[in-house]
Amino acid sequence: MHGYTFFHRASRAFHDHPSISKLLVLFTISSGGLVAFSDAKPSHSVSAGAFQGDFKKKRVVVLGTGWAGTSFLKSLKNPSYDVQVVSPRNYFAFTPLLPSVTNGTVEARSIVEPIRNIVKKKDFDVQFREAECLKIDAVNKRVYCQSTQDTNLGGKEEFSIEYDYLVVAMGARSNTFNTPGVVENCHFLKEVEDAQRIRRTVIDCFERASLPSVSEEERKRLLHFVVVGGGPTGVEFAAELHDFVVEDISHLYPTVKDHVKITLLEAGDHILNMFDKRITAFAEEKFQRDGIDLKTGSMVVKVTDNEISTKLMKTGETQSVPYGMVVWSTGIGTRPIIMDFMNQIGQTNRRVLATDEWLRVEGCDSIYALGDCATINQRKIMEDVAAIFSKADKNQSGTLNVNDFKYVINDVCERYPQVELYLKKKQLKNIVDLLKNSNGNAQNESIKLDIERFKLALSEVDSQMKNLPATAQVAAQQGSYLANCFNRMEECENNPEGPLRFRGAGRHRFHPFRYKHFGQFAPLGGEQTAAQLPGDWISIGHSTQWLWYSVYASKLVSWRTRMLVISDWGRRFVFGRDSSRI
Amino acid sequence: MHGYTFFHRASRAFHDHPSISKLLVLFTISSGGLVAFSDAKPSHSVSAGAFQGDFKKKRVVVLGTGWAGTSFLKSLKNPSYDVQVVSPRNYFAFTPLLPSVTNGTVEARSIVEPIRNIVKKKDFDVQFREAECLKIDAVNKRVYCQSTQDTNLGGKEEFSIEYDYLVVAMGARSNTFNTPGVVENCHFLKEVEDAQRIRRTVIDCFERASLPSVSEEERKRLLHFVVVGGGPTGVEFAAELHDFVVEDISHLYPTVKDHVKITLLEAGDHILNMFDKRITAFAEEKFQRDGIDLKTGSMVVKVTDNEISTKLMKTGETQSVPYGMVVWSTGIGTRPIIMDFMNQIGQTNRRVLATDEWLRVEGCDSIYALGDCATINQRKIMEDVAAIFSKADKNQSGTLNVNDFKYVINDVCERYPQVELYLKKKQLKNIVDLLKNSNGNAQNESIKLDIERFKLALSEVDSQMKNLPATAQVAAQQGSYLANCFNRMEECENNPEGPLRFRGAGRHRFHPFRYKHFGQFAPLGGEQTAAQLPGDWISIGHSTQWLWYSVYASKLVSWRTRMLVISDWGRRFVFGRDSSRI
Repeated sequence: MHGYTFFHRASRAFHDHPSISKLLVLFTISSGGLVAFSDAKPSHSVSAGAFQGDFKKKRVVVLGTGWAGTSFLKSLKNPSYDVQVVSPRNYFAFTPLLPSVTNGTVEARSIVEPIRNIVKKKDFDVQFREAECLKIDAVNKRVYCQSTQDTNLGGKEEFSIEYDYLVVAMGARSNTFNTPGVVENCHFLKEVEDAQRIRRTVIDCFERASLPSVSEEERKRLLHFVVVGGGPTGVEFAAELHDFVVEDISHLYPTVKDHVKITLLEAGDHILNMFDKRITAFAEEKFQRDGIDLKTGSMVVKVTDNEISTKLMKTGETQSVPYGMVVWSTGIGTRPIIMDFMNQIGQTNRRVLATDEWLRVEGCDSIYALGDCATINQRKIMEDVAAIFSKADKNQSGTLNVNDFKYVINDVCERYPQVELYLKKKQLKNIVDLLKNSNGNAQNESIKLDIERFKLALSEVDSQMKNLPATAQVAAQQGSYLANCFNRMEECENNPEGPLRFRGAGRHRFHPFRYKHFGQFAPLGGEQTAAQLPGDWISIGHSTQWLWYSVYASKLVSWRTRMLVISDWGRRFVFGRDSSRI
Repeated sequence: MHGYTFFHRASRAFHDHPSISKLLVLFTISSGGLVAFSDAKPSHSVSAGAFQGDFKKKRVVVLGTGWAGTSFLKSLKNPSYDVQVVSPRNYFAFTPLLPSVTNGTVEARSIVEPIRNIVKKKDFDVQFREAECLKIDAVNKRVYCQSTQDTNLGGKEEFSIEYDYLVVAMGARSNTFNTPGVVENCHFLKEVEDAQRIRRTVIDCFERASLPSVSEEERKRLLHFVVVGGGPTGVEFAAELHDFVVEDISHLYPTVKDHVKITLLEAGDHILNMFDKRITAFAEEKFQRDGIDLKTGSMVVKVTDNEISTKLMKTGETQSVPYGMVVWSTGIGTRPIIMDFMNQIGQTNRRVLATDEWLRVEGCDSIYALGDCATINQRKIMEDVAAIFSKADKNQSGTLNVNDFKYVINDVCERYPQVELYLKKKQLKNIVDLLKNSNGNAQNESIKLDIERFKLALSEVDSQMKNLPATAQVAAQQGSYLANCFNRMEECENNPEGPLRFRGAGRHRFHPFRYKHFGQFAPLGGEQTAAQLPGDWISIGHSTQWLWYSVYASKLVSWRTRMLVISDWGRRFVFGRDSSRI
């Protein structure tokens, strides 16, 4: 009974922060039990006995085993959760190597690691369920799942799981822009199975083209490989396919090799448009030298079972070409279940789930979303400008001087990362300079800003906000960030480490998520890679390929996969790529 | 014109041996051209010029890329053939390692080698067609084929190929003994895809059994693995599955591991009944220790989608048990196309194609069959006993003495290998001893046999004839034997090297095929293997496992596969087997 009274008192004390209070309360009242759990001190264990019935581990359900979900699981260390993972794939796949799998430079099995292998190293219980989540019920805190096996092991097994915290990391699907015929006739490159299927189809095309009854025209059709989308994946796939054909296939299929044609279609004016112009130019020149037919400004309007129709963006002219295989790689779209969930929680007319800077889904309680299925809705500084002003103006004088502002300066920069981006763009040293500017370049000490001048100084800052790219790097950093929050829930509730709450009292519990960009690679084939590293540092060529090898090898999820991928690379150098149709 | 006359004359000369005459003629008349081809002597080339139009390379069509077909292709060195290979698989698979693929000890890709890789090393043209042969038309010397790709590359492509020589090496399919439900519900273990499917299904069963909604009873069903057939393949698979579960799976699926059950069903009284009794006893004891439920004397009578029904051979009692996966491995059956071909050529009521000792299909011209789709119909010595007698009795005295017989003794032993088996069984030193026996143990010099005594002496010899086992070893030896015959067609036509023709004149062109048994392995799991080596030498245990490793590594078809398999083994020792469902 003593426990209950304390529980109620504690509950009331944290009433104003409902979303975080539960955990803190839980940890406070059950810390005796927890210590007993970890240290096995009998005296504590007895005194905590009365709570044993009430103390239930918080149930965390993780949806997805991609970059975000796996990174979360790997970094989660706090044993006070009961974790269930639901995913149709019982493994994590190192997706940046998928293009290499399409032609056998790397084996499919070398880039995957069973989730059960990853979680078995934990000293607490993580249950994995090989199933697909069909529905999230945010009201009753429950997810509905169905087994995905299509074998004859029985009907579709259905079940539901209750959660206290839900981590949505389901990724995205390929975006077809509703182009007719794409789903039916194109290959995608998001899953390991996709890559395996592409590999088989390439071999199929060559085998079929080698049959004696096939006409010359049909042979040309079969060996016309089309890649749609000039992003990093499409470009890498086209380059890898070209290498595969030139280095390996042409020796094995000498009679048909001359008919091979690779076309890369891109609706924009250039490929790799998220990269520096120098990289784009290098890639385009290299493709031209390699004989890859690069068609920019071409939008695909229709795909039939043997023809692909494109529209020239400039002239509007349409054209149809026969093909043997099309690989569609034009960016990501929303999964139906995420769409359904967004409707449920009122996030309509959005492409992906919106979260706050702590990765909490807006409008929901205890639901987090990360990776490709979510974007962070960065708070605008202009929305809070009055609150910031009044927080800084401690003596309520109606004007701010530099010393006033110094009190909030770090918190402002942390809470609104766009400020730093804006300073960088304007080449200002710090925010004080920004305020100075709007005050007619006065000396530091004499700066006096009223609210209007303050607003004016910050008015353009929000223009620097932009969404993070949908990359593995972002997802992985979000996963480990969120796991660290979960690891230190209790600790940070007591000692909040985040920035000031400008609209409320106290501080935010955690630092908001901040993405660190480590650069991006664009493999271009022929043992050459382009890299754009932080600080607009560009590197292109054979040495960058070796940088690529070493970075990817070091980023692999386990020593096992690392060894396998490296041995695959070595094997390819020695023996070439395999062309068996399995 | 000169060529034609010679051709006709030569034709007539070899009229009595139509099946071999053509080749001899071809080589005789075109030897100038052939030498020109290989040695590029211009003078010969000119003199052979007149034939150039008539000289067409003989078209050899090989059906199948299994052990027999691949071994034939590897050993074929004579560039005077135009070779086409037709097979639904564009690779050769090292089938003895298939059980290892089912649980990931070895990767599927490590045991396959593309046929195009194997044939590209030839200095002559070999065309590969990825297609299935649907019909053999022996009258018009033509095979009808269809592409096997089920992708959306277009309809089924059909074509036909003419041949001068046809090598049928299509292997066999699994034998279901027409047991109801087997085709629909059981896994087989003949192809690489089968092994991959089994691997996925094992993981599926474990994943499904781990779902929270699955009942205890259903969980037991899902984790009941049944192996039907106690031959080497079934035993090895059961053992490998057991190791997989104990060594790897149980750590990853701790909640369900106790429900796993492996049952091995065998209709006979013992497993491995083609092996020595000591091996059988060892295997049965080991399985009992391992907890593999071995049920001998149980015949499967029906398989539904979740139950397998067996009949006890002794009591006739039937029993049904629920299962998660059944692997069917009870021996081989005939492929429909072989059945159809046998009907066409009058070989009805047979299980497989009958060939003579030179692997020529009986009743056909220029068709050879080898491997699992054929058996050698060994000529009985009693059928030829009169002819042998009269060949040996050169002076037509009506009796044979030792010296008379010595003239034919080697030829008899070569033509009728059952003689040697009989001598060995009776522990006789040589055939002279056999004749002595029937002559009341007379001294060598005084042996005199009339035809009746001669018949009596040989009367029991034919009882030793037996079919060769349907193993990779036999198929591979047949393939290289036949290729050697093809390599030396011309040479041996001029200088026949085979035994005397007892019913005809002269000698057979080639030595008949003779199988050399190098022993057989039966891996039993837990790093233990049993081996039965020639001379009834038995070896069981861990050291034999290492013998197995080294023999299989050395037998692999290429350095590439050898390296891959060895690295797979090493990988398994270090990291265990992978359980990702791909």
